[in-house]
Amino acid sequence: MIKVGIVGGTGYTGVELLRLLAQHPEVEIAVITSRGETGTNVADMFPSLRGAIDLKFCKPDAAALETCDLVFFATPNGIAMTQAAQLLAAGVRIIDLAADFRLRDVQVWEKWYGMPHAAPELLAEAVYGLPEVNRNAIRSARLVANPGCFPTATQLGLLPLVESGCVDLDHLIADTKSGVSGAGRKVETHILFSEAADNFKAYGVAGHRHLPEIRQGLAEAAKRNVGLTFVPHLTPMIRGIHATIYARITREDDFQAMFENRYRDEPFVDVMPPNSHPETRSVRAANMCRIAVHRPQQGGMLVVLAVIDNLVKGAAGQAIQNMNIMFGVEECSGLTQLPVSP
Amino acid sequence: MIKVGIVGGTGYTGVELLRLLAQHPEVEIAVITSRGETGTNVADMFPSLRGAIDLKFCKPDAAALETCDLVFFATPNGIAMTQAAQLLAAGVRIIDLAADFRLRDVQVWEKWYGMPHAAPELLAEAVYGLPEVNRNAIRSARLVANPGCFPTATQLGLLPLVESGCVDLDHLIADTKSGVSGAGRKVETHILFSEAADNFKAYGVAGHRHLPEIRQGLAEAAKRNVGLTFVPHLTPMIRGIHATIYARITREDDFQAMFENRYRDEPFVDVMPPNSHPETRSVRAANMCRIAVHRPQQGGMLVVLAVIDNLVKGAAGQAIQNMNIMFGVEECSGLTQLPVSP
Amino acid sequence: MIKVGIVGGTGYTGVELLRLLAQHPEVEIAVITSRGETGTNVADMFPSLRGAIDLKFCKPDAAALETCDLVFFATPNGIAMTQAAQLLAAGVRIIDLAADFRLRDVQVWEKWYGMPHAAPELLAEAVYGLPEVNRNAIRSARLVANPGCFPTATQLGLLPLVESGCVDLDHLIADTKSGVSGAGRKVETHILFSEAADNFKAYGVAGHRHLPEIRQGLAEAAKRNVGLTFVPHLTPMIRGIHATIYARITREDDFQAMFENRYRDEPFVDVMPPNSHPETRSVRAANMCRIAVHRPQQGGMLVVLAVIDNLVKGAAGQAIQNMNIMFGVEECSGLTQLPVSP
Amino acid sequence: MIKVGIVGGTGYTGVELLRLLAQHPEVEIAVITSRGETGTNVADMFPSLRGAIDLKFCKPDAAALETCDLVFFATPNGIAMTQAAQLLAAGVRIIDLAADFRLRDVQVWEKWYGMPHAAPELLAEAVYGLPEVNRNAIRSARLVANPGCFPTATQLGLLPLVESGCVDLDHLIADTKSGVSGAGRKVETHILFSEAADNFKAYGVAGHRHLPEIRQGLAEAAKRNVGLTFVPHLTPMIRGIHATIYARITREDDFQAMFENRYRDEPFVDVMPPNSHPETRSVRAANMCRIAVHRPQQGGMLVVLAVIDNLVKGAAGQAIQNMNIMFGVEECSGLTQLPVSP
Repeated sequence: MIKVGIVGGTGYTGVELLRLLAQHPEVEIAVITSRGETGTNVADMFPSLRGAIDLKFCKPDAAALETCDLVFFATPNGIAMTQAAQLLAAGVRIIDLAADFRLRDVQVWEKWYGMPHAAPELLAEAVYGLPEVNRNAIRSARLVANPGCFPTATQLGLLPLVESGCVDLDHLIADTKSGVSGAGRKVETHILFSEAADNFKAYGVAGHRHLPEIRQGLAEAAKRNVGLTFVPHLTPMIRGIHATIYARITREDDFQAMFENRYRDEPFVDVMPPNSHPETRSVRAANMCRIAVHRPQQGGMLVVLAVIDNLVKGAAGQAIQNMNIMFGVEECSGLTQLPVSP
Repeated sequence: MIKVGIVGGTGYTGVELLRLLAQHPEVEIAVITSRGETGTNVADMFPSLRGAIDLKFCKPDAAALETCDLVFFATPNGIAMTQAAQLLAAGVRIIDLAADFRLRDVQVWEKWYGMPHAAPELLAEAVYGLPEVNRNAIRSARLVANPGCFPTATQLGLLPLVESGCVDLDHLIADTKSGVSGAGRKVETHILFSEAADNFKAYGVAGHRHLPEIRQGLAEAAKRNVGLTFVPHLTPMIRGIHATIYARITREDDFQAMFENRYRDEPFVDVMPPNSHPETRSVRAANMCRIAVHRPQQGGMLVVLAVIDNLVKGAAGQAIQNMNIMFGVEECSGLTQLPVSP
Repeated sequence: MIKVGIVGGTGYTGVELLRLLAQHPEVEIAVITSRGETGTNVADMFPSLRGAIDLKFCKPDAAALETCDLVFFATPNGIAMTQAAQLLAAGVRIIDLAADFRLRDVQVWEKWYGMPHAAPELLAEAVYGLPEVNRNAIRSARLVANPGCFPTATQLGLLPLVESGCVDLDHLIADTKSGVSGAGRKVETHILFSEAADNFKAYGVAGHRHLPEIRQGLAEAAKRNVGLTFVPHLTPMIRGIHATIYARITREDDFQAMFENRYRDEPFVDVMPPNSHPETRSVRAANMCRIAVHRPQQGGMLVVLAVIDNLVKGAAGQAIQNMNIMFGVEECSGLTQLPVSP
Repeated sequence: MIKVGIVGGTGYTGVELLRLLAQHPEVEIAVITSRGETGTNVADMFPSLRGAIDLKFCKPDAAALETCDLVFFATPNGIAMTQAAQLLAAGVRIIDLAADFRLRDVQVWEKWYGMPHAAPELLAEAVYGLPEVNRNAIRSARLVANPGCFPTATQLGLLPLVESGCVDLDHLIADTKSGVSGAGRKVETHILFSEAADNFKAYGVAGHRHLPEIRQGLAEAAKRNVGLTFVPHLTPMIRGIHATIYARITREDDFQAMFENRYRDEPFVDVMPPNSHPETRSVRAANMCRIAVHRPQQGGMLVVLAVIDNLVKGAAGQAIQNMNIMFGVEECSGLTQLPVSP
């Protein structure tokens, strides 16, 4: 059994980790912390977990966490970087679901996240936890930076094209749409029901923190810099990311076959048949990315559609997938739930 | 392994059966029929099942079904009653998720369902599949009538009171609210998104088919007739039933303890602590009924709140619970998914 | 022209007042205050008002307000009572959309609202602004207490029965459902989109502040105390109140005719034909209450359905209706918008 | 008074025409037809119109329509073209809200709409009813083809760029999102609440009928052919179109000023300040298009955001705007409703 701790368990990625880990056959949840809810029964806060989780939130002190094999940080940005070194020194492995270790370049990180980085010396060691790219490095990683939700969908939708170099890498476009849970369980006006329901809007067009993360991943795949226009939108649903990707063809190929070959052995990427339109609900509550490749009117533009559940393949599910890889457990263990539809 | 067939697999209860049965360790899905979709891959119609269900819809002919141990009817009302006798004669056990065998009185059935009953001789044998009431009879049943969604929530919320006779049985009120999937996957105007979203309404106030079903169940529990006003409402969510029940106290008791005792050993009924307000999402996609008992201002009226997922404890999940009981499988087998929240 | 001021214009009742008043032919909006948003352009905060409202939020100081004919308080509970006396002394009339002046009994008020009342001497003078009951008193009122949203729907649905005394006044039940905007534009977790969407729950079953307000109104209509069980629910829509009312008949009558007669001359109450099921969207964004009267199975229980838009007939629209009455303007002036459906 | 008829009044554009026309000071609705609902009171079908519309649906016979000054066709594609010639001959002017007269090239029309065109001789005369482009021609038009919803938002978002020729006209991209009412009030499975709620998907990526319409409009503005990739998506809200437009800059300019100048005198186009993100609810139920112009990271790609209400500026409101222009009425007459938000 893998003995795990969760730091910051009161947000949506935290409760989703609990839902999935409670059903994982190889995991024991030893400790879950929350500064604000210390002493509260987890199941009192999240009644959906009644009968499944019998834990109280405790203070985020290191002693309990240091007894774990693995600690998940489901905290806001800026927390994991202050505690990682001590835990690593104690032999605990870490998966950070926030952004602290996602960017290799500390200056880029500090510019986009607006604070000094507390552990720049760990950035080189941290492994970016996209198993479809870094599975081998994840196996032995001590510190995994779990990708963001938009970056997961966008990179999975672009990787075959970028790796093969068959599209114009200077003018990629990712028009992405997120359900509201992607904004977290914070009390902010714009994600109130009465603001976000029956409404659709773009946000952060001038620049979103997921842009440098996606660019970094694509550049590594392309072995050169890439140009990307990235526009996120908020759509009135709870869960789901839909990325619509536009790439101009520079070299002809069988693009459907290219995607099918690239992901043939991936348990959590499903390349759909030609002319499919994946719906976000087809992956709701499941660790899965579904992708469709289109070439409208046989023209020069490829359109790739990629959907994930932002809380699962875009957060907690992918974190568990990384855990399975890190601990030599079957990669699908605890992640076989089927999507809930309707 | 239990070899099962599903008749009418293209509706919401059908696809929910598939989702749950595909993950059931003791079940083999042998055949699924659809008159309209014969030859279609199930996973082409329901992409959420890609990779999990590798079956085509076939014609609803008896031969294939007769090789099954158990056939689920996930059909509209009026279908199962025409095929049940032949299947039973072939030694196949049946769970009907529609209403054909829910009422014992054929005249009442024909009045509410507006058609002659095709198999009145089976009504006496059919067991009403509410495990919390009829577990023993279900074990040996050949033919189980799976309860309706409103009746499940309403009866579970009222049974302790009705059995104990501590409330006015002539003036019970059930004000119930259903998500839209309760209306099925039919093409009807009033359940279009643009009609049902951002909208709330009552319907069928003059009389709803679930009224005689609830009355029958309560009368058996009370061993006398009961008076019930039943008002269903349509609420803009996909899944969920919320029953708000009003009963006037006629004999004092510790009502919280009464509910806790009644359901102490039930794996799928959760009596919440005093002053709880169960939310439908706390049971979303799971086979669970959560109940809270209130006595506002310590007055003479009890208010019971009961929530279920109409497609799970109100349909497919309860059907599988019945199957487990019928075949001597652990009752929770295949039904341990945790609710999906948010 | 009526010169009006709005105190606290950043909530949903504030912006709805602006939407309606901007189109009112007899009104000049002179001043709108907000402590937190002083200096902000109203239309920058509420882009739906671009081009229609050219005002900045200003500090809530008395001088500007004292130049108005009428001041609306669209503030949280507890604000209007601290400023009312001074404004009244300056000859300004007041409509308070919060609860400060809704209850006549200061002790009841202080118990339910949890604070001392700052102007108990004004409670006797304040007129409860339900035009269908108090139209004459409203005409000359200096201080109008605008009713709550649940109380408006519930009282309009019960008044004909209570006034005529044909039902059991000791055991009335109001099972009410509200859209999420009824909770205001506050940053609270339970009204986040990801908490409130695709979810249904009761709340405040032990006791809700609208209960004493409804009881007071019904008692005045009945000329005796009444017993009422009041259970509010939160439903995943933005706007709308649906009240489902249960009353046991104690004296036979033609109840449909009773309602039609009671509201024959009311411009904003629509008694629908027998067997109707009013939908909340049929009054969306309009100052209207639609009511249907049912008697299921010709039994002893009446079921009344009443719907309003909580922000219009349940708040801002009713306030403007009161203003029209107070200032001798045609009662429907500025309130003729048709409901937006779908 | 303009005497108007409506053919096909039971869909969403029909009921929206009724909502707006009922409040129009210069219009008398003389006749409304529906083949399927002949004899039904309009207000029985659409209770939101109770008290405002006192008409019955009548048979679609020509005699009554020929007495009108103007007939709106709110019918499916393929109806108006069969009746237009006779009405025009009778001196009636026509606004078709469907697609029959939107394309000039009959062969293109027949390819995309899959039927022979019944009145190709009228295509040359029909005026494309986008007032921001064709105001003068609309004044004297006998036959106006009201634009589609996607084409309205997309063209208004692209026109300043295309007219000025400052962007790469061969590789324009319009990623568009529509609320579900854009699919009409048809009984089709994919627009059921339980299918469309809490879900997001692209559709028609291979080719959508609005593509040739947009291309035609842009080509006329550019005076050359343009290349456009157009991907529509379905988003779980009732009303609203959000177009996200990508255009590569080929000639530097002050793009914000370009948009402001282009639409300075347009009453129903609102160019928002730099860095704005227009929300669909900011135009809900109003005849308005709001546009924001972005240039992320000062790079080479322009991103234009344009929102409309698909039923108003994208259908019924624009039709009334066209009517006002055709009949010399003030262009904003009957169209001054403020958006409903929240």
